[in-house]
Amino acid sequence: MSRKFNFCAGPAALPEAVLKQARDEMLDWQGKGLSVMEMSHRSDEFVSIANKAEADLRDLLKIPANYKVLFMQGGASSQFAMVPLNLGGKGGTANYINTGIWGKKAIQEAERYMPVHLAGSSAEVNGLSRVPRQFEIQTSTDAAYLHYTSNETIGGLEFDYLPTSDVPLVCDMSSDILSVPTDINQFGLIYAGAQKNIGPAGLTLVIVRDDLLDQAKAEIPTMFSYKVCAENASMYNTPPTFALYLSGLVFDWLKNDVGGLEKMADINQRKAAKLYAAIDANDFYSNPVALENRSIMNVPFRLADASLDKLFLAKADDAGLLNLAGHRSVGGMRASIYNAVPEAAVDALIEFMNDFAKTRG
Amino acid sequence: MSRKFNFCAGPAALPEAVLKQARDEMLDWQGKGLSVMEMSHRSDEFVSIANKAEADLRDLLKIPANYKVLFMQGGASSQFAMVPLNLGGKGGTANYINTGIWGKKAIQEAERYMPVHLAGSSAEVNGLSRVPRQFEIQTSTDAAYLHYTSNETIGGLEFDYLPTSDVPLVCDMSSDILSVPTDINQFGLIYAGAQKNIGPAGLTLVIVRDDLLDQAKAEIPTMFSYKVCAENASMYNTPPTFALYLSGLVFDWLKNDVGGLEKMADINQRKAAKLYAAIDANDFYSNPVALENRSIMNVPFRLADASLDKLFLAKADDAGLLNLAGHRSVGGMRASIYNAVPEAAVDALIEFMNDFAKTRG
Repeated sequence: MSRKFNFCAGPAALPEAVLKQARDEMLDWQGKGLSVMEMSHRSDEFVSIANKAEADLRDLLKIPANYKVLFMQGGASSQFAMVPLNLGGKGGTANYINTGIWGKKAIQEAERYMPVHLAGSSAEVNGLSRVPRQFEIQTSTDAAYLHYTSNETIGGLEFDYLPTSDVPLVCDMSSDILSVPTDINQFGLIYAGAQKNIGPAGLTLVIVRDDLLDQAKAEIPTMFSYKVCAENASMYNTPPTFALYLSGLVFDWLKNDVGGLEKMADINQRKAAKLYAAIDANDFYSNPVALENRSIMNVPFRLADASLDKLFLAKADDAGLLNLAGHRSVGGMRASIYNAVPEAAVDALIEFMNDFAKTRG
Repeated sequence: MSRKFNFCAGPAALPEAVLKQARDEMLDWQGKGLSVMEMSHRSDEFVSIANKAEADLRDLLKIPANYKVLFMQGGASSQFAMVPLNLGGKGGTANYINTGIWGKKAIQEAERYMPVHLAGSSAEVNGLSRVPRQFEIQTSTDAAYLHYTSNETIGGLEFDYLPTSDVPLVCDMSSDILSVPTDINQFGLIYAGAQKNIGPAGLTLVIVRDDLLDQAKAEIPTMFSYKVCAENASMYNTPPTFALYLSGLVFDWLKNDVGGLEKMADINQRKAAKLYAAIDANDFYSNPVALENRSIMNVPFRLADASLDKLFLAKADDAGLLNLAGHRSVGGMRASIYNAVPEAAVDALIEFMNDFAKTRG
């Protein structure tokens, strides 16, 4: 067995310690004679796994008591409908900030359920994209909520500040949740697909303030209801138990191996800083994002000579650096350097990039 | 490590060979240097895994070319809304046969979207429950579809025939899919949560006839649309990749280790027959279902002296026979003997039951 460095944008690398524990417990969890996958979700054993996962997550993010933690299914794409269906029952307009492909998808789905007001957009300034500044965000007078995407995975565009508004702030935090400490109190609702910084695909995390559970539209499917999910402790029906178990192992790793989100943020900022520095130091590479909005999770970059893209990817693959192709909609390269991507992976990538530029560039 | 016999109703036992392969490949799938969980769902490697899973399933169930296989999320409980939302766009009435708790839940959700006509119900005859006979099923004149639950997991009540109707037949096959060969051509739509005979919780299988993809209601969430799912080969967004991989291993096991569904059916019928025979042979035990509708997957039974229930469960647990408690809504006992529960488990259970009745009964 030889593990390689995996820069996949998602489903993404998981901590090796987590995979090893899952492997070791695969046929027999803690001497109980069965796999976690084979447990009733209502068994004492599984409920203890789920409770510990939630407690560790609450601890990591310092989630206040008046917020519910929900483990759902369907990814962020399902949240695109769940948000207007859960928050739109009292009428009003859905306000969205559009900073890229995911924000746009969220808007398109919301438009099917509510009038949507575009409260702000990303823009290009001197060829570099940036998110709108706080003063540029204009919510409508009847805003039910304000939605934004804290980190655009494809564009590599991340908010460097927390937009404020007098209506509930809703955030798609799929690709940067748990990368740095977050002040949950500033939000009405946070959601995130698991497959970047949480665990395997198939689990969706929702953190929602209590007072927002009572404004759903009548036509909401029961399984889309945050309130039903909250009232049933995420077990209205069978949850994706193994994905939840693995996410719990990730939370435990973050808390006890890494030492919490401040430490994780230090590591993430160091990884991102050195990778951007390598890009900036070499004319052969470029990144299209304004300095202050460069994502610390997803680092898109282009080669000066795009005809070398395929060679770059093939050589990187040979060097054990996997999944560096940019999203199919934009091309180029992208290194996703989530929590579980070790600093050694970034160091190896930088060395490879410098070498490639020298020999081929 | 010592594996025990697991009679859980779901999430249920998985084939040991599948768990071992998943364990062995956990950190490095086939020398690629990463876990299946860490692969892009659009990578060649994962697409090959997904394609093989679908091909093996099509082969096992002899699924005709005019049926789509969809891998979705949210369990059967999400299907309870998806069925009326996808099939109700042309108006008409949703027809349901109610044979237990799951059928009733399906009806309650459908009523939120369409008028529902009760086309038939289970009944008690001489203290034994049975499903309605074909002649008792009365669909409404404007039926959009006829929905039934082929096996009620909690009641242990299974259809011994395939209801026919001149409208599309929709079946919740969550707890008996793949237990016997099925003539897919008789159905408009079949759905099943994975966590009994398919794989881990978090994946939902849908098999739908092509011509039913164009009658969705306007308000359907994009992620609930069979059509969108079909047009994107179950990858409109990130699917639950690891659950799909494991399900593929189960399909491969069914095909190549077991030898197909005819052989699986023989084993299942033998397991069920000997367990029911043991119940019938001993006055200490009873099963509340008419002979012809006894489930070959879920075998509920009661002790003559219910005050011994807790002792029975504790002793069974000591004997390595896990999860024999009946559903919390009905009490008593239930042995779920899905595909992955080996015949040796049933033999051990029968021996235990006989011994318990002799010494305590």
